[in-house]
Amino acid sequence: MKSNTVFKTDIEIAMEAELKPIDQIAEKLGITEEEWEPYGRYKAKISLDVLKNKADLPDGRLILVTSINPTKAGEGKSTVTVGLGDALSQLGKKAVIAMREPSLGPVMGVKGGATGGGYAQVLPMDEINLHFTGDIHAITTANNALAAFIDNHLHQGNDLNIDPRKIIWKRVLDMNDRALRQIVIGLGGPKQGVVREDGFDITVASEIMAILCLAKDLDDLKERLGKIIIGYTYEDKPVSVSDLKVEGALTLLLKEALKPNLVQTVEHTPSIIHGGPFANIAHGCNSVIATKMALKLGDYCVTEAGFGADLGGEKFLNIKTAAGDLKPDAVVIVATLRALKLHGGVPAEDLKEENLAAIEEGFSNLVKHCETISAFGLPFVIAMNKFSGDTEKEIALFLQLCEKHQYTCSLTEVWEKGGAGGLDLAQKLEKLIEETSSSFKRLYNNTDLISEKISKITRIVYGANRVEYSKEARRQLMQFEDEGWGKLPVCMAKTQYSLSDDPSQIGRPEEFTIHIRKLKPSIGAGFIVALTGDVMTMPGLPKKPAALQMDVDAKGNAAGLF
Amino acid sequence: MKSNTVFKTDIEIAMEAELKPIDQIAEKLGITEEEWEPYGRYKAKISLDVLKNKADLPDGRLILVTSINPTKAGEGKSTVTVGLGDALSQLGKKAVIAMREPSLGPVMGVKGGATGGGYAQVLPMDEINLHFTGDIHAITTANNALAAFIDNHLHQGNDLNIDPRKIIWKRVLDMNDRALRQIVIGLGGPKQGVVREDGFDITVASEIMAILCLAKDLDDLKERLGKIIIGYTYEDKPVSVSDLKVEGALTLLLKEALKPNLVQTVEHTPSIIHGGPFANIAHGCNSVIATKMALKLGDYCVTEAGFGADLGGEKFLNIKTAAGDLKPDAVVIVATLRALKLHGGVPAEDLKEENLAAIEEGFSNLVKHCETISAFGLPFVIAMNKFSGDTEKEIALFLQLCEKHQYTCSLTEVWEKGGAGGLDLAQKLEKLIEETSSSFKRLYNNTDLISEKISKITRIVYGANRVEYSKEARRQLMQFEDEGWGKLPVCMAKTQYSLSDDPSQIGRPEEFTIHIRKLKPSIGAGFIVALTGDVMTMPGLPKKPAALQMDVDAKGNAAGLF
Repeated sequence: MKSNTVFKTDIEIAMEAELKPIDQIAEKLGITEEEWEPYGRYKAKISLDVLKNKADLPDGRLILVTSINPTKAGEGKSTVTVGLGDALSQLGKKAVIAMREPSLGPVMGVKGGATGGGYAQVLPMDEINLHFTGDIHAITTANNALAAFIDNHLHQGNDLNIDPRKIIWKRVLDMNDRALRQIVIGLGGPKQGVVREDGFDITVASEIMAILCLAKDLDDLKERLGKIIIGYTYEDKPVSVSDLKVEGALTLLLKEALKPNLVQTVEHTPSIIHGGPFANIAHGCNSVIATKMALKLGDYCVTEAGFGADLGGEKFLNIKTAAGDLKPDAVVIVATLRALKLHGGVPAEDLKEENLAAIEEGFSNLVKHCETISAFGLPFVIAMNKFSGDTEKEIALFLQLCEKHQYTCSLTEVWEKGGAGGLDLAQKLEKLIEETSSSFKRLYNNTDLISEKISKITRIVYGANRVEYSKEARRQLMQFEDEGWGKLPVCMAKTQYSLSDDPSQIGRPEEFTIHIRKLKPSIGAGFIVALTGDVMTMPGLPKKPAALQMDVDAKGNAAGLF
Repeated sequence: MKSNTVFKTDIEIAMEAELKPIDQIAEKLGITEEEWEPYGRYKAKISLDVLKNKADLPDGRLILVTSINPTKAGEGKSTVTVGLGDALSQLGKKAVIAMREPSLGPVMGVKGGATGGGYAQVLPMDEINLHFTGDIHAITTANNALAAFIDNHLHQGNDLNIDPRKIIWKRVLDMNDRALRQIVIGLGGPKQGVVREDGFDITVASEIMAILCLAKDLDDLKERLGKIIIGYTYEDKPVSVSDLKVEGALTLLLKEALKPNLVQTVEHTPSIIHGGPFANIAHGCNSVIATKMALKLGDYCVTEAGFGADLGGEKFLNIKTAAGDLKPDAVVIVATLRALKLHGGVPAEDLKEENLAAIEEGFSNLVKHCETISAFGLPFVIAMNKFSGDTEKEIALFLQLCEKHQYTCSLTEVWEKGGAGGLDLAQKLEKLIEETSSSFKRLYNNTDLISEKISKITRIVYGANRVEYSKEARRQLMQFEDEGWGKLPVCMAKTQYSLSDDPSQIGRPEEFTIHIRKLKPSIGAGFIVALTGDVMTMPGLPKKPAALQMDVDAKGNAAGLF
């Protein structure tokens, strides 16, 4: 996301920014002193009462920011989301940004934070990227408390007759820790529990993260927690959290985490940051509560969903809108020339070189995502996120291709200029919303069979022409329909790098097969997870983790964060 | 701790108490707006600058609250600590309480919180007992980040030549989870890390918890983190965190957690709650920083150390005072008639029955702890924490025994009456401090061999006449002295229920042997851990965990917490 060599780093910009005290941001947002609590000087938790207190107000416009299939560095979707919010603010609109909170694991590993970049950041970026207000820690705790209750149940006599080989509830850590993917626990004899195979996922893949992000209120949270399926008995009957009677304790552990967090952008636009599932292994959207609050409190709610329109975008539109009764007004599709070149076959190390042919070839990936958004009945603008290396010829070609397809397109420079770099995008978006009426519809019906839902997603969104199920997945399809879980939406777990389930299939692959390896019931979240290919639910660290650069400076401030 | 049957529960009292906004408590404490940050309405983090800003002020008096060997229910040490602070406040003194933060694992399992009880509580008790300000989560994260860095190092080529069989750094969770005590990780082939044996401890047993509690400032924290020994190479050379170059990242993860937390008692006495190692498996004291701040900001700092004078007390006096350059003025030894009866041989289920003979017999346990405190050159008062079932005859006998031994003694009723129930204790303590001069001295010298330090502690504090080392421990004694670690103090890990290492040896056992099973270098914390008997560093849950009662009520408040 670095715009050019003379620019400051994200953390330098973040540290130099003058933040306003959070009470001023809360006031700007229009919430009363009783409706929020401070967490330090620049963070706050917003009371869930806000939704009740403002129930009579009309909702603002809902704008979803999504992207094409990204490169490893990401295309700046969070940056565009923040910049668009700031641009709308500059235009005198009351804009509220709703985003996910970052997972610490990738911050320690390879990835930059998830707080935008340059002059389009949410702040305090160091705190948001580290422990923030503790929401993810609370989810880790609740997830692992449940795991401890399960293993304690086995150890204390196993009244529920749970088959230790069929426990599907895994432990989690907010860490990239490959050595914990497959483990054996309970070793050491009869005083140390029951021996069984187990494994850790990263916390953002926990069903509890999804539940927190889809729950409407505290009661709904508790009801969903009770419905979690933790495994099966020796007779193959599903066992739920309510059978263990610990949904109250889990709710208690999560009651503060359910409150959304308020921060600000570099330009002081109110930003509600809450919940953070990844979009490749989970549903990839911030909480329903945060989005609903932003809609109540703003003329515009600008929100994003993780990775491309095939992942976070699809799940936002099929799953989150249903859970939260949301109706999007327009979509922004973020693209970069680098990513188009990658999809045109250029190796990662050569992306800085001008390559017109590759852009023309890779444009097919963008076209596919535009078709997807159209299939949902939604108007869209393409935001071309400019990088310093982009050549004039490349940009001209890109605009020409957009014109050829009759796509509305805007060049954004929010990394370098903040909101000012997104004014054109904001104006085009306003015009689009005024002139076109959204005829939003989801791509499948709840009453479709699980396999029909998977077929529709893979055909319409990915462009696949075949779905192949493993033997286990076929067995699960029947089992899940028998259990009455067939009416739930499907949450696809798939690589973010390709429209297919094979990360090497760049561009717009045709006539390919999607391989469903396994299904997982997330009955509390209210969806069935379909795992494709080799999707990994616990990342690993690289040879030289980002952590090696991190430190605290002489003043006690974060250093080397990015 | 329940005083009698008509009284309210701790959580009822806590919920009915009217808290003052935390800015009023901060003002009472004498710190400026720049020196603290709010965490919600009733919690704050205090800036480390306070110690610098107030460096010229004289220190207040340091009072340590300890106890005899406790029953499973505890003797109300935290309650007396809080009540004594409130009593001193009632007498017009500026009292500041310094306590540990509770571990969530036991809260979910069996134990009540660690926030005192009745009308002698620190508040908000539900928040303090749950996630509080996230310090323990930060420690869990730093601990497990280090573990992930280690396993990643093995996986990525193992440049440091670490022997996977000799890694001593364990993962942690703030959970009672016996199934994680002994595990095998890295299963699943060459992409999933290196297979090895591992295990989880509870977070409060992490060396990082000890480091946070013993560090003087951020620089000291980082230096200590760098010194942690994570294991050994194939050539048996110790490998430290600084070899992995991640002490900066760990410091970054802990920089907010290093700031002490400010809360208030039911009577609004400022209370600094920070750090929470258990005293049986770790050193058992709140942070040095919290204690030093309380000393700077109060006429009196009332602090406690976990379990009996043989555990937290001994470690406070030998380890914490050395790390923090602290000089205690007086000690309060808490005793209950129930505990004395237990030490006199009464089974747990019969403790409510009057039993004079058992009190006389069990008094020997108290005598031993009084001798220990005298050996440290410190004056003490015995606080007899009254329970509703105590009979007049029993109390009379107790007072008579105290008189016989020339012990200063006070009957406290702080659970029932708050500070008013501790006025006599506070007055006796003031008098004691005025009339006697502390001639505090530690029981061993740094230059003593590790085995000499262990001999002195076990002989003077426990009353043992012999120490037996396992073969492994004997080998480690030599190895540790060779490594130059012999000059560090020793942190004993021992059962809290007995002066010996066998929990069934009640009262004052004589002529017994202490068995040293294993040593562990905690070079970052700056001590050598000596594990005796079967001390467990990861507790398990009981058949009916406390969590089964927990819930959130219709107003969104904690319910069924205790």
